[in-house]
Amino acid sequence: MGHDDAELLSRRDAAFGAGAPLFYDEPLHFVRSEGVYLYDQAGRGYIDLYNNVPCVGHCHPKVVEAITRQVGVLNVHSRYLHESAIELAERLIALHAPQIETMLFTCSATEANETALRMAKYLTGRKGIVCTNKTYHGNSDLVSHLSLVGTVQPESAHVHAFPFPDSYRPLEPGLTGEALCEAYLEKLTDAIKRFEMSGVGFAGLIMCSIFANEGLPDIPDGFMARATDIVHKAGGLVIADEVQAGYARTGCWWGYELNDFAPDIVVMGKPMGNGVPLAALGTGRSLMEMFRAKTRYFNTFAATPLQAVAGLAVLDVIEEEGLLDHVASLGGRLKAALQERQSASPRIGDVRGSGLFLGVEIIKPDGGREPDRERARWLSNRLKDLGFLTANAGAYENMVKIRPPLVFNEQHAQSFLEAWDTAISGFDF
Amino acid sequence: MGHDDAELLSRRDAAFGAGAPLFYDEPLHFVRSEGVYLYDQAGRGYIDLYNNVPCVGHCHPKVVEAITRQVGVLNVHSRYLHESAIELAERLIALHAPQIETMLFTCSATEANETALRMAKYLTGRKGIVCTNKTYHGNSDLVSHLSLVGTVQPESAHVHAFPFPDSYRPLEPGLTGEALCEAYLEKLTDAIKRFEMSGVGFAGLIMCSIFANEGLPDIPDGFMARATDIVHKAGGLVIADEVQAGYARTGCWWGYELNDFAPDIVVMGKPMGNGVPLAALGTGRSLMEMFRAKTRYFNTFAATPLQAVAGLAVLDVIEEEGLLDHVASLGGRLKAALQERQSASPRIGDVRGSGLFLGVEIIKPDGGREPDRERARWLSNRLKDLGFLTANAGAYENMVKIRPPLVFNEQHAQSFLEAWDTAISGFDF
Repeated sequence: MGHDDAELLSRRDAAFGAGAPLFYDEPLHFVRSEGVYLYDQAGRGYIDLYNNVPCVGHCHPKVVEAITRQVGVLNVHSRYLHESAIELAERLIALHAPQIETMLFTCSATEANETALRMAKYLTGRKGIVCTNKTYHGNSDLVSHLSLVGTVQPESAHVHAFPFPDSYRPLEPGLTGEALCEAYLEKLTDAIKRFEMSGVGFAGLIMCSIFANEGLPDIPDGFMARATDIVHKAGGLVIADEVQAGYARTGCWWGYELNDFAPDIVVMGKPMGNGVPLAALGTGRSLMEMFRAKTRYFNTFAATPLQAVAGLAVLDVIEEEGLLDHVASLGGRLKAALQERQSASPRIGDVRGSGLFLGVEIIKPDGGREPDRERARWLSNRLKDLGFLTANAGAYENMVKIRPPLVFNEQHAQSFLEAWDTAISGFDF
Repeated sequence: MGHDDAELLSRRDAAFGAGAPLFYDEPLHFVRSEGVYLYDQAGRGYIDLYNNVPCVGHCHPKVVEAITRQVGVLNVHSRYLHESAIELAERLIALHAPQIETMLFTCSATEANETALRMAKYLTGRKGIVCTNKTYHGNSDLVSHLSLVGTVQPESAHVHAFPFPDSYRPLEPGLTGEALCEAYLEKLTDAIKRFEMSGVGFAGLIMCSIFANEGLPDIPDGFMARATDIVHKAGGLVIADEVQAGYARTGCWWGYELNDFAPDIVVMGKPMGNGVPLAALGTGRSLMEMFRAKTRYFNTFAATPLQAVAGLAVLDVIEEEGLLDHVASLGGRLKAALQERQSASPRIGDVRGSGLFLGVEIIKPDGGREPDRERARWLSNRLKDLGFLTANAGAYENMVKIRPPLVFNEQHAQSFLEAWDTAISGFDF
């Protein structure tokens, strides 16, 4: 790290307070970006395999143009009539399953998840929320009570956890297929029953549709639909957090399509505005109107023309550039190439994920599938030094997380694979 | 309302769900804005006396230019180093009282208020929050428990209310001055004591520094400083919500300067980005670092270059255009002109506020100071028909709320006063 960066870091600690999170052992200082490239002060370009917010690429000209045009014309709250936020809601509704009939816009997915949990509580008149034991849904009070609950954070009267479904490290050794699926469903049922027994009552289940923070596990067949069924029979709502799963990321438009279940509420966030703060909640008409009548919900900065035109431009680009098909096919080839590397290395335990959201499990090489967080961290730092941005993540922080902007192409993928081979060559891998 | 607007309204109800709030009996449909003007589809200009978000004027060229430049260069989260958000934090810290040493950025003031309440709870290890009985601090679960608590919404185990200090409709008839101040302080002390007795314990007091939603009451002399003292002696924190009070609005930079108290945490929001979602929390270094260490707080869309350059441009404009002095002097003249009208009308009970945030109390003309919500509502609709945007607000919704962009000038004020006279002429007022 040069002198200038050391000085900036010290100004940052002074202004934000020490402890504001930064990536990598030596942080990166970016000054410019374009497509899948981020450039540092020295002009060095890094290929971005991490960021899902700039989903159609950093500074996509079409999004830039839409923002530039709108910001000089009108940007005002939603208690006056204007058209673009309505149009964005209509476009999103058309992309969703039929039960998603209406939209509520917020600035962040934290706000949208807050709203989803409040809706579930109001509709059911009960307070118990179930989530997985390795999840993260946002940074507010209510939502942060879900973070890593039952593992790092204790369960509370209103939040119970069940172990996320995982075929690679199953609940009990040797369990597979149907038996494994049932074992996880039983844990979910237990969590619900504990609310019924405590008198808190069960309001709903919230889950990322692909369990991204949990580490993109291979979910036992049928789990999601059967879990949905269990939740509905217990009188609760299913909230699908599509913040990471959605927007063509997996090669499907939504994670709940990929994993075949029908949520009652969907929450969208990160990629929606390509960097403009924009998130949304979708649900059925009657629940939305009940919530609106009860709360008169209003969000000053949400559903504005600025956010809406950014959101519309993102949808246009995904459609015009055929990114949904692109993601599915390139993602498949990239996964296959990583699986080849897996078969050559005892340190790669698994390659998981779909589309352009892949995870490579780094494990101890003794065959016991023991997560090797330190080695994963080393690898993501080393890939960074070679000009490729990934991170180590997942329930055990031992997964190299690959989640580039959707415009990441074949050439970028080839360069990344070469960098991967360079990164590990000469090391015991 | 024309055919096109009726159709748009019906699309809006379909897409958002019926009940998404709209202003005025007949909503306005805007397509363009500039300075203090909002224009409808027919090209008719309305003078904006309501919106504090576009604080340096709708589509201010300097803000537009900053956004336009940045959005094509870099817009990425804060886990990489970049400079502009650090600079914005430094600028804000320099504008604040000495105890405000660090900043945490969020997308909305709801998120910042959430964070402030969590900080107070973590620092004290206690959970009880006191607020006024006619307040609003945001739309999340925790923060919405403060809305109109003790009046519309019942108190909860963790939220107690005290009646907001008000010299116009005092706690007990006839109480004034020092005695009135003490009566309100006693109510605050009671609210704190109830937490101590219930075992919940007292974490902090949150209040808008000028009690904007309460109706900009004339606060008994010394109340704010003495309330701060009571809170500190009880081991709690004082959180100043500067979302409406701050940013030169009252002719002071911050509401806590105007009302002379020293908060431990400040929350800023609406005017910060002139329409770009941007909010912040400021506090002392040790509390900030404790919170960061405990939570590893991160906010995807916050502290980005896009938000930061908008925030910096707003500060530049306020400084370059001398808006602080402008607001103080024009606000004083406007208030005096409204007070002249008060002395001519038994229906105007009071004119309150500072700078460019004024409230005109509409009452029944029988001398009993009975709020006349319907007449206030009628007046703001009538002013709208004449091309001037206000609202009826305050604890009794009988206050015509005047809160224009800070670039509202002498000529706009003259036109507004003429419109006011026209609005009431021929009516019993």
